[in-house]
Amino acid sequence: MIAEIITIGDEILIGQIVDTNSAFIAKELNKIGVSVHQITSIQDEKDHILYALNEAAKQSQLIILTGGLGPTKDDITKHTLCDYFDDELVENNNVLTHVEHLFKKYVKQPILEANRSQAMIPSRATVLHNEYGTAPGMWMEKDDVVYVSMPGVPFEMKGLMQNHVLPKVQERFDRPYIIHKTVLTYGLGESAIADRIEEWEDHLPSHIKLAYLPGLGRVRLRLSCKGKDKEKLEQDLQAEIDKLLPQIEDVFSGFEEENPIEVQIGKLLQHKNATLATVESCTGGKIAARFTSNAGASAYFKGSIVSYATSVKQELLHVPEDIIKRYSVVSEHVVKAMAEGVKKSLKTEYAIATTGNAGPTKGDSDASIGTVCIGIATPTETFTYRFEMGNHRERIVQKTVNKGLSLLLEQLK
Amino acid sequence: MIAEIITIGDEILIGQIVDTNSAFIAKELNKIGVSVHQITSIQDEKDHILYALNEAAKQSQLIILTGGLGPTKDDITKHTLCDYFDDELVENNNVLTHVEHLFKKYVKQPILEANRSQAMIPSRATVLHNEYGTAPGMWMEKDDVVYVSMPGVPFEMKGLMQNHVLPKVQERFDRPYIIHKTVLTYGLGESAIADRIEEWEDHLPSHIKLAYLPGLGRVRLRLSCKGKDKEKLEQDLQAEIDKLLPQIEDVFSGFEEENPIEVQIGKLLQHKNATLATVESCTGGKIAARFTSNAGASAYFKGSIVSYATSVKQELLHVPEDIIKRYSVVSEHVVKAMAEGVKKSLKTEYAIATTGNAGPTKGDSDASIGTVCIGIATPTETFTYRFEMGNHRERIVQKTVNKGLSLLLEQLK
Repeated sequence: MIAEIITIGDEILIGQIVDTNSAFIAKELNKIGVSVHQITSIQDEKDHILYALNEAAKQSQLIILTGGLGPTKDDITKHTLCDYFDDELVENNNVLTHVEHLFKKYVKQPILEANRSQAMIPSRATVLHNEYGTAPGMWMEKDDVVYVSMPGVPFEMKGLMQNHVLPKVQERFDRPYIIHKTVLTYGLGESAIADRIEEWEDHLPSHIKLAYLPGLGRVRLRLSCKGKDKEKLEQDLQAEIDKLLPQIEDVFSGFEEENPIEVQIGKLLQHKNATLATVESCTGGKIAARFTSNAGASAYFKGSIVSYATSVKQELLHVPEDIIKRYSVVSEHVVKAMAEGVKKSLKTEYAIATTGNAGPTKGDSDASIGTVCIGIATPTETFTYRFEMGNHRERIVQKTVNKGLSLLLEQLK
Repeated sequence: MIAEIITIGDEILIGQIVDTNSAFIAKELNKIGVSVHQITSIQDEKDHILYALNEAAKQSQLIILTGGLGPTKDDITKHTLCDYFDDELVENNNVLTHVEHLFKKYVKQPILEANRSQAMIPSRATVLHNEYGTAPGMWMEKDDVVYVSMPGVPFEMKGLMQNHVLPKVQERFDRPYIIHKTVLTYGLGESAIADRIEEWEDHLPSHIKLAYLPGLGRVRLRLSCKGKDKEKLEQDLQAEIDKLLPQIEDVFSGFEEENPIEVQIGKLLQHKNATLATVESCTGGKIAARFTSNAGASAYFKGSIVSYATSVKQELLHVPEDIIKRYSVVSEHVVKAMAEGVKKSLKTEYAIATTGNAGPTKGDSDASIGTVCIGIATPTETFTYRFEMGNHRERIVQKTVNKGLSLLLEQLK
């Protein structure tokens, strides 16, 4: 079963926003067996929208549109849908009541004509209730193709997808199973892995597809298959993975479909009834932000000290000045003192510490750009590491975050 | 002048990655007067790529492709381009030398056959040197349409765009000027603003386009225009903005095309020769991460304490236990003590403090979900604020980050 996603909005085409909606929609559709054939981003322009709808309908049984449903004059999706379906807008009482309710509760002002227009819906559309906003989702059908239109505001779209669109698609369409399993590897390049597993790759069954996804020091190998018999697909995939893993044992680090690494760490910490703190220099709070993005992190994450200035390392973490002077601020000695300092002052069992030079200039340290030290404090011991992470600021920081998390995970395991 | 962006890769269509490349490319093209008509994401599938190229060539003079240039078997873009251009792959010596050089320097192993294949280029293509990777960019032409193919790895693509593609596009095409100016507003809904400025909007000259971009508690109003005479366009836009601003004075907060808010803050701090620290509870390090994402932040940003656990507030920040008990951890009293505590212990002149309940459960506080307190410490005084931010975890955190930054900016101005 094939779908196309069409996102409408000039702001995407001028690069003012990154389209994150499409990835969310594609992932959710994939989980229920729907293959996305194409994602198309177009302007708020009637003829272009009509052309894209006609093109999409040639291939797809399901067309998901987002954007262009606001109350202002630049939003034209509803009018264009009326053209496409030869339909007209009529006022929907349920939507109007909901809009009035939202205004009473949050805006505390009577609704304006523009808000009232949110309740004008193509007569042939089934309304999908938008709990979080004034523009409802709409479900329409023509020649056995389903068209779903949703607002582009991400959290409104997500609510509509989960509460209405996905259940209705599952009810309406007969779908195969699509299964992905992504093997994570660290430490070997894409072509070296391909060379090593060439024979295995050449003998993959035709219904299993392999993709290489390199980036940030790791290579992900995604195996995908699609079919009617879920159990058999899973067995086939597992059989291939069982053949693959012994060949890449030295660089294998897990599966992407497992929980994100910070969630895995959280589970292990809770299991051990232990807590964690971080002390971050070159990563500047980004490891803490990873943990605190997850609801419930307060059960194991106590906090962080972002010691961006060298003085903070001395005063708050009590890293002795002579260690900093002797070994420089980017050193395994200093990162060890940082990890132990934060573990002590935040009274935790574990800690991650980072210090490094992400560039573009050398800063407080003599270390060359790309030199990073990571410390992992455990209840009994502190481990330190030194890496060269290249010369690209953003990548150095991101690689350090990933590396710090995976080193802690190893210790916890 | 019209362009289309085509991104190739199953990982986009199954939602495994968010396509950030397109927004970058679109924004850079826009700056040099190129309008992006459509962004299309498709699979690594030959017929689909050929169809997309043919479709794009109907409208566009410039077609930018990313992805599918890796050394492994799932990468088929080069072969497909040969089909499309009726061309063949030939070994390019410069590319081969570069691949060998990268392997010698970073991998420290001889190159494999797959890496050597990176030097196989369609004979009619102009090679664009990829400083950061083994797959070069390619520039090809057919029937007055330019086709540019680049690898999908973001930092390689960015290097190619900036060093080669943008200069060559500027040389090759006559382009108009495209100017955007985005007015930022806080505190009034999209429809209420539209209602207030209706008459102005109705009288906008036809070459100036208005778009409303709502989100995270603010509404952005983007004015765009395009033409040959840059000075006149700028005058026209300014004339309309001069008419608009008095009507929205109470909610106007700046222009998006200015520096990001954290950079504006950094400049003001440096101007005052002052430094900043943050202490973050519900924002969990995300404000610190905003500052430390910018190279050079160490000149004014000293660090942060992420006090996720209540005990950290007591022990590290010396917030008195009786204040926490009496007013609860989410209170203006506590946020004031936090701001002043971090300002003192990190020896800065300014500080931002956040404490709140982002949900989904109530945590250590009695405050209802969505209640957030922000403190701004200045050299002479500490200001505190209390907000209700709704009931959506991710939004509460993001709105708090934005609000904290804009409150500090106000104080600095």
